[in-house]
Amino acid sequence: MRGTLLIFSGPSGVGKGTVVKELRRRSDRIRLSVSATTRKPRPEDVEGVTYYFKTMEEFEAMIGRDEFLEHAVYSGNRYGTPAGPVDELLDAGCDVVLEIEVQGALQVMERRPDAVSVFVTAPSFAELERRLRGRGDTTGADLERRLRTARTEYALAPKYDYIVVNDRVERCADEVMAILTADKCRAKYRLDLLKEDD
Amino acid sequence: MRGTLLIFSGPSGVGKGTVVKELRRRSDRIRLSVSATTRKPRPEDVEGVTYYFKTMEEFEAMIGRDEFLEHAVYSGNRYGTPAGPVDELLDAGCDVVLEIEVQGALQVMERRPDAVSVFVTAPSFAELERRLRGRGDTTGADLERRLRTARTEYALAPKYDYIVVNDRVERCADEVMAILTADKCRAKYRLDLLKEDD
Repeated sequence: MRGTLLIFSGPSGVGKGTVVKELRRRSDRIRLSVSATTRKPRPEDVEGVTYYFKTMEEFEAMIGRDEFLEHAVYSGNRYGTPAGPVDELLDAGCDVVLEIEVQGALQVMERRPDAVSVFVTAPSFAELERRLRGRGDTTGADLERRLRTARTEYALAPKYDYIVVNDRVERCADEVMAILTADKCRAKYRLDLLKEDD
Repeated sequence: MRGTLLIFSGPSGVGKGTVVKELRRRSDRIRLSVSATTRKPRPEDVEGVTYYFKTMEEFEAMIGRDEFLEHAVYSGNRYGTPAGPVDELLDAGCDVVLEIEVQGALQVMERRPDAVSVFVTAPSFAELERRLRGRGDTTGADLERRLRTARTEYALAPKYDYIVVNDRVERCADEVMAILTADKCRAKYRLDLLKEDD
């Protein structure tokens, strides 16, 4: 059967990336979506792996052809999720994780009502703040900005289908795996089982 | 947190009871609801364990006080699920399984929109027929009646949230456990995690 499109969001510092890594370790049918961007490639970037690199003209042509599940502008660069590669993976039966911020997530929920949306939180807001401070790479202004962003993200979290807590990566991944398994059991996907002539 | 009310239905012969037994083996927080009935106790019956035995007057008084999640008549006897004991278990954090037929299930879905409903099927209708035949205790007329009932049940299965296949009991129980875990992750139950003053 077709895979599940998993919208996966959460504040900076919550450990989304670590949870996604654990999910991929558990199943090679779980894949990460690759974004397109107009920002310049950095030495560590690999075309089609870290990003699809596009010129501004190419990107805008893709918007014109309605090829994005969501797109947005950050620091003057455009970023977006091309629908094509995602649908190919879904058709091949893979679950595709979109690790995206909340505004993009809301766009995808709108366009893909069958997507399953999961918001990752820390066990508490105080713990999130502690984790951000613990990173060491954040100045005071940076920390304040991240916390402000986290507050606007938390305000939109009730729009997600599910909320999981990243207290321990394994336990959090257990919950996401259960959400993926349950989604595949939805009656709407299994009506074929009820046919008498099978 | 409050437990999950799990509506669990499926045709005669599909092995619902075996799946429920496996669920209870895996977690002692999963409990079975006990029905009330006006039928006479049999030697193997234990009050409050197999059934709550009621006189017709008592049963009808309970209906009058709106104490049932669902109730129905079979072969001249009344059967129903009293809400009180179910809610006590749910409040204590247990998941409560209502193993009931489809008409009762529809009543509970109506009264308890937060209940999670699961319909158990055989891998195919032909396989269900084979299992019913294999029981040995069914006459031809009996078999025909059970298959007719199964058809009306299958017709209502799309109204359930989930459909699980009892091909192997362990695999089927895995899916039901995932459904229970996922239900507890629903955003509506976890909004407290988003509060900043926790």
